[in-house]
Amino acid sequence: MNYCSKCGSRVFSKIPEGDNRERKICENCSHIFYESSKIVVVCIPQWQDRILLCRRAIEPRKGHWCLPGGYLETGETLEEGAQREVYEETFATVENLKLFSKADLIHLNLIMFCFLGQMKDETFDTGEECLEVRLFEVPELQQMELAFNAHRLSMEAFSQSPESGNIHSFRIEED
Amino acid sequence: MNYCSKCGSRVFSKIPEGDNRERKICENCSHIFYESSKIVVVCIPQWQDRILLCRRAIEPRKGHWCLPGGYLETGETLEEGAQREVYEETFATVENLKLFSKADLIHLNLIMFCFLGQMKDETFDTGEECLEVRLFEVPELQQMELAFNAHRLSMEAFSQSPESGNIHSFRIEED
Repeated sequence: MNYCSKCGSRVFSKIPEGDNRERKICENCSHIFYESSKIVVVCIPQWQDRILLCRRAIEPRKGHWCLPGGYLETGETLEEGAQREVYEETFATVENLKLFSKADLIHLNLIMFCFLGQMKDETFDTGEECLEVRLFEVPELQQMELAFNAHRLSMEAFSQSPESGNIHSFRIEED
Repeated sequence: MNYCSKCGSRVFSKIPEGDNRERKICENCSHIFYESSKIVVVCIPQWQDRILLCRRAIEPRKGHWCLPGGYLETGETLEEGAQREVYEETFATVENLKLFSKADLIHLNLIMFCFLGQMKDETFDTGEECLEVRLFEVPELQQMELAFNAHRLSMEAFSQSPESGNIHSFRIEED
């Protein structure tokens, strides 16, 4: 970050008064910019005893299998984001989403939330960002090298015990 | 957002090819900016049968009681962020954090994660952003109007059943 997104002037790095970390501050309008992590939402779509995976058509890890998912958009809950991403990548509709795991990807400033979701029916197809989409038996998955560490760890935990933690979840639209 | 934070040129709104939402795009370097939600981490610090709350010295809701918490910083996990915020606001050390609830604050583009945490000992004091910090019995809390909706909903759920969901959590530093 070199310029203020509000007024277009240069920014400089400084610890603001009462703070203890360097931030980017605009030399003109004095706006302070706080860096924040981005959020990725993924899903383990379940159909009876099988799991729906997709094979990536895009980098990173093009050609590798992974859980359907992607970046959270503003204006949606984590669950709505996971449902949208599953639909965009696999044309499957998942319901009754329960948080299963989260991974803090420190090196990427990313946080991944992984939900269990029940497929409404056996309908699915190959989305634009996929080469292939198909259902796998859980034992098959144990032999596979999924695209990302966070997906692998979540699927390992799922293979051992496919139960969600069932945390409380609130959608709030006013304060 | 009016200017590109990379090169300082004007940005305009457009749906990029292959996308379905308007994004801010730089007219000079063509960088696409994706909006994202910010993350707030809070804690229900437990000492025996009591909970540590703080009374806000700053707006919004100055003078109201709330759970200790604040914005997640980059480079830390959600749990580490919650521990840091508890310490900054109350000088208490919390351990063994378990995710209890999350709230999607759609109107604010915020997501709040609330953890249960065990206080290491009875040590606490009043942090800079607080007017007062003290331990409350859970029945006392039911009569109180906490500062924020998301805190109130989490404490109501806690009063009914103070158990965490125990999701899987991974700290990942390489892919």
